[in-house]
Amino acid sequence: MNRIYLQMEEVKSKVDSFIRKVVDEKGRPETLYKAARHIIEAGGKRLRPYLVCKTCGLVGGVEEQAVPAAATVELLHTFTLIHDDIMDQDTVRRGVETVHKKWNLPTAIIAGDLLFAKVFEVLGMVGLSDLYSCEVKLSILQLLTEAAILICEGQALDMEFEMLSEVSESEYMEMISRKTAALFEVSAKVGGVVGGASADQLERLGDFGRNAGLAFQIVDDVLGLTADEEELGKPIGSDIREGKKTIIVIHALRNSSEREKAKILEVLGDKKASRHKIGEVIALLKSLGSIEYAMNKAKDYAIKAKSTLQAFRDCREKEDLLSLVDLIVLRRR
Amino acid sequence: MNRIYLQMEEVKSKVDSFIRKVVDEKGRPETLYKAARHIIEAGGKRLRPYLVCKTCGLVGGVEEQAVPAAATVELLHTFTLIHDDIMDQDTVRRGVETVHKKWNLPTAIIAGDLLFAKVFEVLGMVGLSDLYSCEVKLSILQLLTEAAILICEGQALDMEFEMLSEVSESEYMEMISRKTAALFEVSAKVGGVVGGASADQLERLGDFGRNAGLAFQIVDDVLGLTADEEELGKPIGSDIREGKKTIIVIHALRNSSEREKAKILEVLGDKKASRHKIGEVIALLKSLGSIEYAMNKAKDYAIKAKSTLQAFRDCREKEDLLSLVDLIVLRRR
Repeated sequence: MNRIYLQMEEVKSKVDSFIRKVVDEKGRPETLYKAARHIIEAGGKRLRPYLVCKTCGLVGGVEEQAVPAAATVELLHTFTLIHDDIMDQDTVRRGVETVHKKWNLPTAIIAGDLLFAKVFEVLGMVGLSDLYSCEVKLSILQLLTEAAILICEGQALDMEFEMLSEVSESEYMEMISRKTAALFEVSAKVGGVVGGASADQLERLGDFGRNAGLAFQIVDDVLGLTADEEELGKPIGSDIREGKKTIIVIHALRNSSEREKAKILEVLGDKKASRHKIGEVIALLKSLGSIEYAMNKAKDYAIKAKSTLQAFRDCREKEDLLSLVDLIVLRRR
Repeated sequence: MNRIYLQMEEVKSKVDSFIRKVVDEKGRPETLYKAARHIIEAGGKRLRPYLVCKTCGLVGGVEEQAVPAAATVELLHTFTLIHDDIMDQDTVRRGVETVHKKWNLPTAIIAGDLLFAKVFEVLGMVGLSDLYSCEVKLSILQLLTEAAILICEGQALDMEFEMLSEVSESEYMEMISRKTAALFEVSAKVGGVVGGASADQLERLGDFGRNAGLAFQIVDDVLGLTADEEELGKPIGSDIREGKKTIIVIHALRNSSEREKAKILEVLGDKKASRHKIGEVIALLKSLGSIEYAMNKAKDYAIKAKSTLQAFRDCREKEDLLSLVDLIVLRRR
């Protein structure tokens, strides 16, 4: 497992230095560019760029060449984080204040918009033509756009679900497959496109990314209830306060007595619920086996993801991608 | 002048029907797609698509071929309107409630994001390859991205200026050249690219669009104070309530007595200013000659725009573009 941490640090450092050139310190107005860099500079694992670089290598491409494409994926991801934080009224992410909290709502909206524009600025960069052909750029454009649209739809669903008292597990899966798994799927494919993957390989890479992304989101929902708050970089239980219908909550509501159900629904969506109340609900979710249920689901998707890699030749990148899946499931933040 | 209205209606109908296919009625979640179409369906003149189609024709291209490119420009424009309305807390546009007012803040943020993504979805459309080569698509991508970034920067400046007591005319011009003129410039160039313009022609088209855009924004600021409220489709004087440093206000503050200045500053930025107070300030701006000053500036830019067309052959499209500039200055909404 140590190798993957080193590898991830390496990808992060390359991608971040590329992003720093795109979301430039000399950009004006200064506040806008500062706000746009804020969440990127606050940390993060760069899982998606890592996926891009490693899938590129897996199909025989040069990992280094995938860096600009990996940066577009991270820019897109960060844009969605900034806007999601506004919508979910989250005040802390990656251990720092969210953009709308640190600055204000308008600045956060434009900072997100700017990053979204920067995604496509990178694709249009003249210097990039030495690395990617016009057709490769257009394929990446298509993939990123597809992901962006699915993310919008997924986020809209996520919020609609907050208002509903009943959401089924398959509705939840549909929602996270758009909100989260789409960008993992696209990241894996983008790396493949840069590396010159065949149509067959691209499809398999997409399957890999999607399943890894589903596992990621389910684990994310679990960590939101069980992680160490400082390590996680955001408040424990905020999903419950926001009334999010995570797979954990859905399982619990389906498998609880009327009294337990009432107790969960009383706190779910109560923006002002005390830490104590939240703690009680989390304990209840644990005792109902809902967290274990979710973790088992995540592990299932992780296994599916790994199995899609069987068709690829054995190589370092394959090992790295397998380790990435382990990391997704075993991570504590 | 009658010809241009018919021509504009024709472009609008083609572009709108293209947009309806892209921001589909079958898109889900339904509310998100409805919210994304709301401002488009409420009306608007489609000036920018018109620019795209006519500049395409001007350089010898087939106007019809410019329709998808024209649609991308309008999608980009609409996305910025939806987000700007949130930031400026405007409640009415084109005679209907703004998206965040009719639905809510999260829906408006995602609806804008979705339209922004749709801009690039159009560029990536497989069917478009019959019309535009890969290189043409990439050129359009570069132009649209450039405009999007400038619009973000311009909007950020516009809001920063609300907080400043003094803004110079050149700072105002810099701000509107990003916030508004950039998209006019890019629209003219996009049409040129589709029509196969030379580098020289593209530069001239850009100059044309930029100057027309500057004239447009100055007239817009004037109309915001002088138009018929119903015809305009939004409240008169909202710029004053929001503390916008328009060229009219800048001129007035520079050319008023201490007493007059105090009177303007008292109301400027007062979100709760009464209709009566706003009316008084508008009367003062008129008596100071600030509105006339702004209109003369607008006319200067209109003349500049027209003169950049001299180098092009005489043709219908040239006449249409000259009429467009007249319309920009003479319009009442």
